[in-house]
Amino acid sequence: MRSRLLSLALAAAAVGMTGAAWSQSQEPIQPIVPPKQVDLGMVELGKKLFFDPRLSKSGFISCNSCHNLSMGGTDNIPTSIGDKWQQGPINAPTVLNSSLNFVQFWDGRAADLKAQAGGPIANPGEMAFSHTLAIGILESIPAYQRTFKKIFGKDRIDIDQVTAAIAEFEKTLVTPNSRFDQWLLGRADALTADELAGYKLFKESGCVACHNGPAVGGNSFQKMGIVQPYKATSPAEGRSAVTGKEIDRFSFKVPTLRNVELTYPYFHDGAANTLGEAVDIMGRLQLGKTFTKAENERIVAFLKTLTGDQPSFMLPILPPSSDATPRPNPFK
Amino acid sequence: MRSRLLSLALAAAAVGMTGAAWSQSQEPIQPIVPPKQVDLGMVELGKKLFFDPRLSKSGFISCNSCHNLSMGGTDNIPTSIGDKWQQGPINAPTVLNSSLNFVQFWDGRAADLKAQAGGPIANPGEMAFSHTLAIGILESIPAYQRTFKKIFGKDRIDIDQVTAAIAEFEKTLVTPNSRFDQWLLGRADALTADELAGYKLFKESGCVACHNGPAVGGNSFQKMGIVQPYKATSPAEGRSAVTGKEIDRFSFKVPTLRNVELTYPYFHDGAANTLGEAVDIMGRLQLGKTFTKAENERIVAFLKTLTGDQPSFMLPILPPSSDATPRPNPFK
Repeated sequence: MRSRLLSLALAAAAVGMTGAAWSQSQEPIQPIVPPKQVDLGMVELGKKLFFDPRLSKSGFISCNSCHNLSMGGTDNIPTSIGDKWQQGPINAPTVLNSSLNFVQFWDGRAADLKAQAGGPIANPGEMAFSHTLAIGILESIPAYQRTFKKIFGKDRIDIDQVTAAIAEFEKTLVTPNSRFDQWLLGRADALTADELAGYKLFKESGCVACHNGPAVGGNSFQKMGIVQPYKATSPAEGRSAVTGKEIDRFSFKVPTLRNVELTYPYFHDGAANTLGEAVDIMGRLQLGKTFTKAENERIVAFLKTLTGDQPSFMLPILPPSSDATPRPNPFK
Repeated sequence: MRSRLLSLALAAAAVGMTGAAWSQSQEPIQPIVPPKQVDLGMVELGKKLFFDPRLSKSGFISCNSCHNLSMGGTDNIPTSIGDKWQQGPINAPTVLNSSLNFVQFWDGRAADLKAQAGGPIANPGEMAFSHTLAIGILESIPAYQRTFKKIFGKDRIDIDQVTAAIAEFEKTLVTPNSRFDQWLLGRADALTADELAGYKLFKESGCVACHNGPAVGGNSFQKMGIVQPYKATSPAEGRSAVTGKEIDRFSFKVPTLRNVELTYPYFHDGAANTLGEAVDIMGRLQLGKTFTKAENERIVAFLKTLTGDQPSFMLPILPPSSDATPRPNPFK
């Protein structure tokens, strides 16, 4: 207990706070707390659906294609590849910790994970299917039929059940235990002096004004290009596409910085390839501040401490189609 | 012991053999035996490489895209989708039990898994990359650098190391313990009467002439369309593309029937959607035999007993790119 208190005091001192009254609750970033309760049956079903490319017209694209859980819950390309190799308009946001976002999609057009999950399936530029066709596929697969019936107690599968199961799985995709969270929770030696200096800069420069809370973002809309305009390589208009208001033009949901080391390239158009580049652009465009090379490196060092425990589960094995399952032809 | 002998006798009797001298070694199909020894470090590295889309030009296609281990080691579409949504000329063969094949690819142009693994990476219609570019990517990723050096003891990564690691991982992708193997190993009640009748038909009709051994195939080339010609929807010529000999035209490696319930659609052109269809066509074209509906159903019932334990491992987490890693742009 004594050493824990000492660690806390040292950690607080290191970020320039008085040790006595310091506690994690005073930091603008909070540790990630895994969900206390999930429906395990729904999680297992949702995991299968998340990996199942039969929810796409081509039979080739699954949720995991663009929100790849081997790669930080993203596809690590500027904008995603959709049906027939269509170029998506926007960078795929990470699905990791997406349950912590106050709304879903860059423009917030979905209120929650369940509302989000149905979008890409029916988007002609993404999975290019329809909910009706996707349900038809699932109902033709005996093992899915049985599992849906067991969980939801209905004879027919519907899209609400599908998105509810995917959302329940996605709730488990949180990444606790990053070195930064360990430090927040009192392990003073979890961060190096440079990383702590980077965190101090991150707070003092104003980054933390938008990137705060457990997700270090994901809890407000902000204009991209406040001090200087941002020349996007993407046609996405942001929040105004939802509200129709000119004032919301180029306003986007602030992305989470959790696991940001893994979720390159950055910004809604994926135009920044490295963290150094992203920090530099953010500093100049959002804060009117040009970070020195040393400052930039320290902030990047801090950002890399936000990488948490990645999802850890067995590769799901999907139930086979039956003779009655419509077969996809991705070239028609 | 007594009941085991009894089971064996009953099982033998059920397929029309005299009980006394029957043993599994007399059956034309042998149980799958998992590898006795693998290099675990190489397996773990190879697993990551198998799932890593950075081995493709687009950064989107990995080995697992077309040999999806959630779906029987195939993509369940007639012919695969390559870079820029190019239509592949041939059905992706399952990677499951591919270590049991006497040669690799439908036309046998690779002697073993190691020789095979480099092919798709550099094929302009598949991953569309080059070995040099792929190695450049891997060498720019610190965690890969360290792992390769630890395993192979060299300062530089080369394609031989990459394909050796992938091949070592693929050796683990065997599927023992199918109900048919349980029956072969003496569990008489592992198969139903219909399934056993199907196996008897499979043997007596001549299917077993080509589909035999532990992989139930994968150990010879045979012409597609012996009794009647096969009208393929694919331009693939088969073995003659390798030997240059007219006699090898439309000769293909006999595919394994292990897990065939999962590896639809069937044939080198993926033109048969269901097992029933495949059995019917094989009977007529290869054996000059038209199976009745009941016979067809029994053979299909037998074939479904060849589904073994699917690969069981944690989803691999890939090491992140560094600032020095070339970034893919799939739309250029």
